[in-house]
Amino acid sequence: MKIGFIGLGKMGSGMAANLVHAGHRVTVYNRSPAKVEALVEQGATRASTVAEACRGDVVFTMLADDTAVEDVVFGADGILAALSRGATHISSSTISVALSQRLTAAHRDAGQRYVAAPVFGRPEAAAAAKLFVVAAGAPQALEPLTSLFDAIGQRTFVVSGQPAAANLVKLSGNFMLASVIESIGEAVALVGKAGVDPLQYVDILTSTLFSAPAYQTYGGLIARREFEPAGFTATLGLKDIQLVLAAAEELAVPLPVASLLRDRFLALQAGGAGHLDWSAIATLAGRDAGLNHPA
Amino acid sequence: MKIGFIGLGKMGSGMAANLVHAGHRVTVYNRSPAKVEALVEQGATRASTVAEACRGDVVFTMLADDTAVEDVVFGADGILAALSRGATHISSSTISVALSQRLTAAHRDAGQRYVAAPVFGRPEAAAAAKLFVVAAGAPQALEPLTSLFDAIGQRTFVVSGQPAAANLVKLSGNFMLASVIESIGEAVALVGKAGVDPLQYVDILTSTLFSAPAYQTYGGLIARREFEPAGFTATLGLKDIQLVLAAAEELAVPLPVASLLRDRFLALQAGGAGHLDWSAIATLAGRDAGLNHPA
Amino acid sequence: MKIGFIGLGKMGSGMAANLVHAGHRVTVYNRSPAKVEALVEQGATRASTVAEACRGDVVFTMLADDTAVEDVVFGADGILAALSRGATHISSSTISVALSQRLTAAHRDAGQRYVAAPVFGRPEAAAAAKLFVVAAGAPQALEPLTSLFDAIGQRTFVVSGQPAAANLVKLSGNFMLASVIESIGEAVALVGKAGVDPLQYVDILTSTLFSAPAYQTYGGLIARREFEPAGFTATLGLKDIQLVLAAAEELAVPLPVASLLRDRFLALQAGGAGHLDWSAIATLAGRDAGLNHPA
Amino acid sequence: MKIGFIGLGKMGSGMAANLVHAGHRVTVYNRSPAKVEALVEQGATRASTVAEACRGDVVFTMLADDTAVEDVVFGADGILAALSRGATHISSSTISVALSQRLTAAHRDAGQRYVAAPVFGRPEAAAAAKLFVVAAGAPQALEPLTSLFDAIGQRTFVVSGQPAAANLVKLSGNFMLASVIESIGEAVALVGKAGVDPLQYVDILTSTLFSAPAYQTYGGLIARREFEPAGFTATLGLKDIQLVLAAAEELAVPLPVASLLRDRFLALQAGGAGHLDWSAIATLAGRDAGLNHPA
Repeated sequence: MKIGFIGLGKMGSGMAANLVHAGHRVTVYNRSPAKVEALVEQGATRASTVAEACRGDVVFTMLADDTAVEDVVFGADGILAALSRGATHISSSTISVALSQRLTAAHRDAGQRYVAAPVFGRPEAAAAAKLFVVAAGAPQALEPLTSLFDAIGQRTFVVSGQPAAANLVKLSGNFMLASVIESIGEAVALVGKAGVDPLQYVDILTSTLFSAPAYQTYGGLIARREFEPAGFTATLGLKDIQLVLAAAEELAVPLPVASLLRDRFLALQAGGAGHLDWSAIATLAGRDAGLNHPA
Repeated sequence: MKIGFIGLGKMGSGMAANLVHAGHRVTVYNRSPAKVEALVEQGATRASTVAEACRGDVVFTMLADDTAVEDVVFGADGILAALSRGATHISSSTISVALSQRLTAAHRDAGQRYVAAPVFGRPEAAAAAKLFVVAAGAPQALEPLTSLFDAIGQRTFVVSGQPAAANLVKLSGNFMLASVIESIGEAVALVGKAGVDPLQYVDILTSTLFSAPAYQTYGGLIARREFEPAGFTATLGLKDIQLVLAAAEELAVPLPVASLLRDRFLALQAGGAGHLDWSAIATLAGRDAGLNHPA
Repeated sequence: MKIGFIGLGKMGSGMAANLVHAGHRVTVYNRSPAKVEALVEQGATRASTVAEACRGDVVFTMLADDTAVEDVVFGADGILAALSRGATHISSSTISVALSQRLTAAHRDAGQRYVAAPVFGRPEAAAAAKLFVVAAGAPQALEPLTSLFDAIGQRTFVVSGQPAAANLVKLSGNFMLASVIESIGEAVALVGKAGVDPLQYVDILTSTLFSAPAYQTYGGLIARREFEPAGFTATLGLKDIQLVLAAAEELAVPLPVASLLRDRFLALQAGGAGHLDWSAIATLAGRDAGLNHPA
Repeated sequence: MKIGFIGLGKMGSGMAANLVHAGHRVTVYNRSPAKVEALVEQGATRASTVAEACRGDVVFTMLADDTAVEDVVFGADGILAALSRGATHISSSTISVALSQRLTAAHRDAGQRYVAAPVFGRPEAAAAAKLFVVAAGAPQALEPLTSLFDAIGQRTFVVSGQPAAANLVKLSGNFMLASVIESIGEAVALVGKAGVDPLQYVDILTSTLFSAPAYQTYGGLIARREFEPAGFTATLGLKDIQLVLAAAEELAVPLPVASLLRDRFLALQAGGAGHLDWSAIATLAGRDAGLNHPA
């Protein structure tokens, strides 16, 4: 298939490479051209504009946030203007439900197809074609894409005919992670104030009830108070919780834990610690227990 | 070693059997004598009173709750009266921090030793000697017990010189589980109202970010709304959250998620659903979203 | 002074009338012309377009919400286009902080002045010139307006040089009222479940600690479960809490009670009760206590 | 009537004096005898033991807390032992629902009557016989007491046949006050961070929506950050919220605002500020907004 790929960050580079390896003709575009080189060496074609990446049957976007996607889609010579009628935009970025709904309508009005396919997995999983793809869109739009999703991931979940539902599922995953961070923070404050060593406590948790990587990763960071350098900043965490709450508000779904998380992230932000890893919200329970000062 | 073992429920039976298998002389006591038979067949000695189980170097208790432990320890001819000076009471029950502190003082005043050693693991793990033991107490009291803990578990964590710290760690695990239930409940309400199938959603969560058994078990129950028969009732869940909050109050540790959980359990109780599995609190987020009525 | 007045609802009619009575030349505009008549009879001049109401030194707007204000200000032949350089737009509507900031910038860029002057008080107070005016803006813009504020209110508070601060104060008042409703709801659920009559309970509260009208009004509505017809709908209450939270988010101020209120309003909305009086959120505490079903 | 009065603190002294002035024969007892003198000068009789104060038809207790009441009632030669069959114990102290229920049973078993009659009002109101009396108990026990309540208060509310209901109403009043403190704290943090002067803001609130004394008193303390000397310490505030939550738990009534308040008081306590006025919890919203450090 003739594919465009826009956005060659840590995730996008691996995804695009795997599409090349699977035998597709992939034209790649990235705002800063340095990252394009490596893909070209693996067999991709360089696009010097967004429009050049839109000449195939399909164009992927894998960008940082709503603003980046809006620029690339709605800008002059953007995807909306450049993509052929009947061609498909696959959006893999973690974006808001509202933007995904807006993209759905805009592409439909332009006679194009739009599919949301955010992914779960870290950069290493992207490089190894081991991502989990959460896809949503019209069945006739999704059907031809199966081999593409197989090329980048180990498993694809089709969750809805409405693209935005896939974005909601992706965002909900970050809500779930943040709620793990908060509860570890509270538990560590509790047992820590009783004299139990946080590192040993996290070892107990992850040896027994919670063997999942999320607990190991964040439990370790919290126990060691190792919030720099940030894997994912508190400022980005706040943004994602805000996106979850905005989507929930639209659906009239109260989410008390998400509300609490929002307040925690705001407190961290207010204390000037938005640049820390988002697991730093776990320090606030300790602070409220008189144990330490926020990270 | 000469060991008494009081409390032959699903967990205690397996633990006592493994102590027998490890070559210890184990005298067993249970309020309802039916369960004693199986242990005797495996080589244990029957005690017809609590006091008879207290004639060794060590006596384990593995009972349902604070009240059961209080009866057995402080009652006439109870452990406190019957245990020799210098002998050790190992309390493996999930009890309150306050009771563990009270036991610490009472045994010390009686010239006896007291160690808390609650365990993580299900009955099958108890039968297979695969428990995780969280032990706390004076080093000289704990040191001779190593082989006993090895006989019942796959790993022992010594967390503190204060016995009650081990009970707090155990209680905190139930807090962590309940917080998982609540966050799954909120996430399922959110994506469910957007039309995503809860079962598929839980499949996504447990395939990607949350491979831990807790997510698989509770995610499945919640997605299937399968709250009867209860593995662990909401009424017991409420009790454990109350014990966590009581311990936290004593230590002056605010726990906002635990406070929310308490309110959830109370709402379930008030709605007449205390007999359901504790994962039924997950239905309340859906109810607040207008999706369904509480379980 | 030569004054325009746009928006002759229950509040605006009284305010405009009092400006007439104070001797000002007032030109009035209202989208539905019926309400204009009464003002003309009292001495005002009819404007048939927004632009006609913008020919004086000052133009007031007293409209329903952000959208209404945006239409009137930014529309073709709107205030921004029609108002003279150096003239002042006084915005008395309850609008968002963000819109007030946008108006500040837009009027400045157009060489006009902008002042926020939301009011506290009910329609009867507006009619009786007994409002409380919360004003904010540049001192040189505010200074000439003193007599206008005196004509409509019993007291003026100048809170800031930044107009949006006055809007925030106004919005915070609605947050405070909603928090009163919630706490009455919780207290009534508590004592009600213990058998105390809610009406008598509210009588006690308002006779002793809480003689303020807010407690009398909302306490009565809650005790009598009298949520229709709505004085102020739950849907509008939700909107105001959302505006408070949006402003707080911008300032990085966590507001846990406001977060709870948002969840309460969303639950009411999800249950199809957004048309009820906003005091109906008080029923949710009772529902969670198993006492009744939401209004 | 022949009356005993136990507990001559700021409130009790005024109440006892008014009973004397109303023509009753009042025998007074206080642990520290200094305060007895003033009452004797006004016509009361001195009791040197609790039992001496129990020789009449009725004995009032107006003491600091549960412990003080338990000592006086259940101690050797306490009220339970000394009071005649058929005589009435009127408990005006702010005590727990659980203790009030225990007193109900104990007095019934002893053939005595028990009535709860906590009061609303400050010491000045007690001195001026302007208290509000919230009474509960069996009608035949309450009926003869009407003139006594009239002697100490301006109005009596009979709320239930169960004495403990009156204690719950009293405790709920403190919950309502604490929730006012929290919401003022949040609002002041919000507008304060936007540059509005807290003192002026409280002036606006109490001039407009919230003219009640509670808002004036606590709003002023919060705006001036005047938390010492404490009128009512945060430690006592925590205790009362705990009593509210304990009663609510017994009734299965979730109270999310009370849960939040409990966490606020615990955070203050953990920070070493339990000795401050309870309105100091209002500083925590500001702290979370990065505005200041806790009081």
